[in-house]
Amino acid sequence: MEDYLQNLSHKRFNILTEEWVLVSPHRTKRPWQGQEEEISSEERVSHDPNCYLCSGNTRANGDVNPNYEDVFIFKNDFAALTQNNSSFSTDEGLLKSETESGICKVICFSPDHSKSLAQMSIKEIEKVILAWQSEYASLGREKSINYVQIFENKGEVMGCSNPHPHGQIWSQSSLPNEVVKKDKSQLKYYEANNSSLLGDYLKQELKHKERIIFENRAYVALVPFWAVWPYEVMIIPKSHQNDIYQIPSSETILFAEVISVVTKVYDRLFNCSFPYSSGIHQAPTNKANNKHWHWHMSFYPPLLRSATVKKFMVGYEMFASPQRDITAETAAETLRSLM
Amino acid sequence: MEDYLQNLSHKRFNILTEEWVLVSPHRTKRPWQGQEEEISSEERVSHDPNCYLCSGNTRANGDVNPNYEDVFIFKNDFAALTQNNSSFSTDEGLLKSETESGICKVICFSPDHSKSLAQMSIKEIEKVILAWQSEYASLGREKSINYVQIFENKGEVMGCSNPHPHGQIWSQSSLPNEVVKKDKSQLKYYEANNSSLLGDYLKQELKHKERIIFENRAYVALVPFWAVWPYEVMIIPKSHQNDIYQIPSSETILFAEVISVVTKVYDRLFNCSFPYSSGIHQAPTNKANNKHWHWHMSFYPPLLRSATVKKFMVGYEMFASPQRDITAETAAETLRSLM
Ligand SMILES: O=P(O)(O)O[C@H]1O[C@H](CO)[C@@H](O)[C@H](O)[C@H]1O
Ligand SMILES: O=P(O)(O)O[C@H]1O[C@H](CO)[C@@H](O)[C@H](O)[C@H]1O
Repeated sequence: MEDYLQNLSHKRFNILTEEWVLVSPHRTKRPWQGQEEEISSEERVSHDPNCYLCSGNTRANGDVNPNYEDVFIFKNDFAALTQNNSSFSTDEGLLKSETESGICKVICFSPDHSKSLAQMSIKEIEKVILAWQSEYASLGREKSINYVQIFENKGEVMGCSNPHPHGQIWSQSSLPNEVVKKDKSQLKYYEANNSSLLGDYLKQELKHKERIIFENRAYVALVPFWAVWPYEVMIIPKSHQNDIYQIPSSETILFAEVISVVTKVYDRLFNCSFPYSSGIHQAPTNKANNKHWHWHMSFYPPLLRSATVKKFMVGYEMFASPQRDITAETAAETLRSLM
Repeated sequence: MEDYLQNLSHKRFNILTEEWVLVSPHRTKRPWQGQEEEISSEERVSHDPNCYLCSGNTRANGDVNPNYEDVFIFKNDFAALTQNNSSFSTDEGLLKSETESGICKVICFSPDHSKSLAQMSIKEIEKVILAWQSEYASLGREKSINYVQIFENKGEVMGCSNPHPHGQIWSQSSLPNEVVKKDKSQLKYYEANNSSLLGDYLKQELKHKERIIFENRAYVALVPFWAVWPYEVMIIPKSHQNDIYQIPSSETILFAEVISVVTKVYDRLFNCSFPYSSGIHQAPTNKANNKHWHWHMSFYPPLLRSATVKKFMVGYEMFASPQRDITAETAAETLRSLM
């Protein structure tokens, strides 16, 4: 790796979003006197009578959760997207809006309130993956749905209001901003090269090796060259699949293995239940031509130096470009050393 | 304003970034059980012997601050951008990077450690504006600089590590992501209509009135139609100016007045020293054709419901699109009522 990438301020290009990240490797010695996060010291029990996600408990809307044994999915009681039968749009010159229809679901990963993906067995994680697959497929069959966003907010610092292991699935009629960017870049590349952008990127990474954290027969976990968050990680399937529904049934367990490895390493990094938002980007559900899509899962963890000091994406980052201090290579090395 | 905009989930288009925001007005009743921010209860003195920004004190690098009387500017001791004489780039296929050269400065708004812009007089705020103008001009004359990002991170929750009233100025050789987007959209509009995108938008807003918070002879403060943050505010000059250096000298005091009004209203909203990141977007410094640029200042405040409950831009927002619950119209009404 070129010396300047480890020593001088530079920018790196995200081939998927076509945006830049500013990297300042010389700045890692900056002292920190700002806000520190609290570490939740709560002892967690396997079943919390006050948790609205635990089995058998009553939710805000009066519904009672079943005594579920692995994964449990329900419609979000305070959904940001609802199914509008009406479709409106304003276009008064420069004030443009459109109704957006959608379905929001919550997915409990386990009945055990005290666990997170890192503490679940690989077999248990596989059940979550199977549920994601069937949700992607069934939501995708709804006429009004064109995109399914699977994600997890983990930890209070990521706005998660309930420690019970769970994620969310928001599905909607149009493509969200980030998906539009990745749709464009992948299509452009596919049309020019007749191969997958992310597949070709993966080949380069496997040659370099320095940003790879883990690989098995079907997946690679790496810190992308253009990572924004200090310990950002991306899981990429080695073969070209447009969406998670295309994962061969023999490989879901291998996907579960990578998720397990990544979340366990994360917990070891600062000796805490590591917070992050994770999400899967994949092909829209009702577009004829999705050949260019190569699905992938990303983890965006906020912590920078310790369990209590996070990276703030604020002024410069909001108005200009994201900025990071430690390089992707250093982050990958640290994560690898914790395996 | 159309009814559906206040009742149904919909998306709104940001004409400057050409991205969408998801609005869920029906969702404002969602209960909150998640993280609450701490309110800093610290009594603040006018001069803090331990503050590295107070006059006469010594900074981390050994430099001693002068006994400044209004504004004081110095080069950031831990600059994210430095002046590289060398210029490199990698282009190994899909791993693209370029060196980025720049100058980062810190600007103390006042010697009084206990104040923020909201407590400063309009005359004092004008001195900050004059300093921004001369920094924009002088940094812009540097060969390696093409863009000057003026911003402020206020409050611990915005990653600000020192309560002393101050902002930052990061200047650099290339255009950051957000600026590239606004450069494109404004240019496209200007070429098609021979008028300023933001100027024409302002005309529409002044007709509607419902998102306007304050105006004087030269400026308007409003909640933009496509606002992302709950109480986001934009200050727009009524006349078409490409950058802050073009502000007529008779109008800097009016710009100071709007900043004063906005920051005071903010402090009243939740009865606290209101946190935010603010920034000025304006024309690049060494491009021949900047006619399409209409500079503006934005405030991105994180608070949602109270001094301690913020809006989390996490999972869905990171992977899909930004999302908000209260509408821009409701937010504007609330802010207006606090004038
Ligand atoms: O003001 P500081 O301490 O340099 O740093 C703060 O603002 C910078 C620019 O927005 C961010 O990159 C940092 O994450 C934040 O902590
Ligand atoms: O999980 P919740 O409580 O619905 O909400 C959380 O995730 C949502 C989707 O990322 C965000 O819009 C909210 O700001 C956050 O608090």
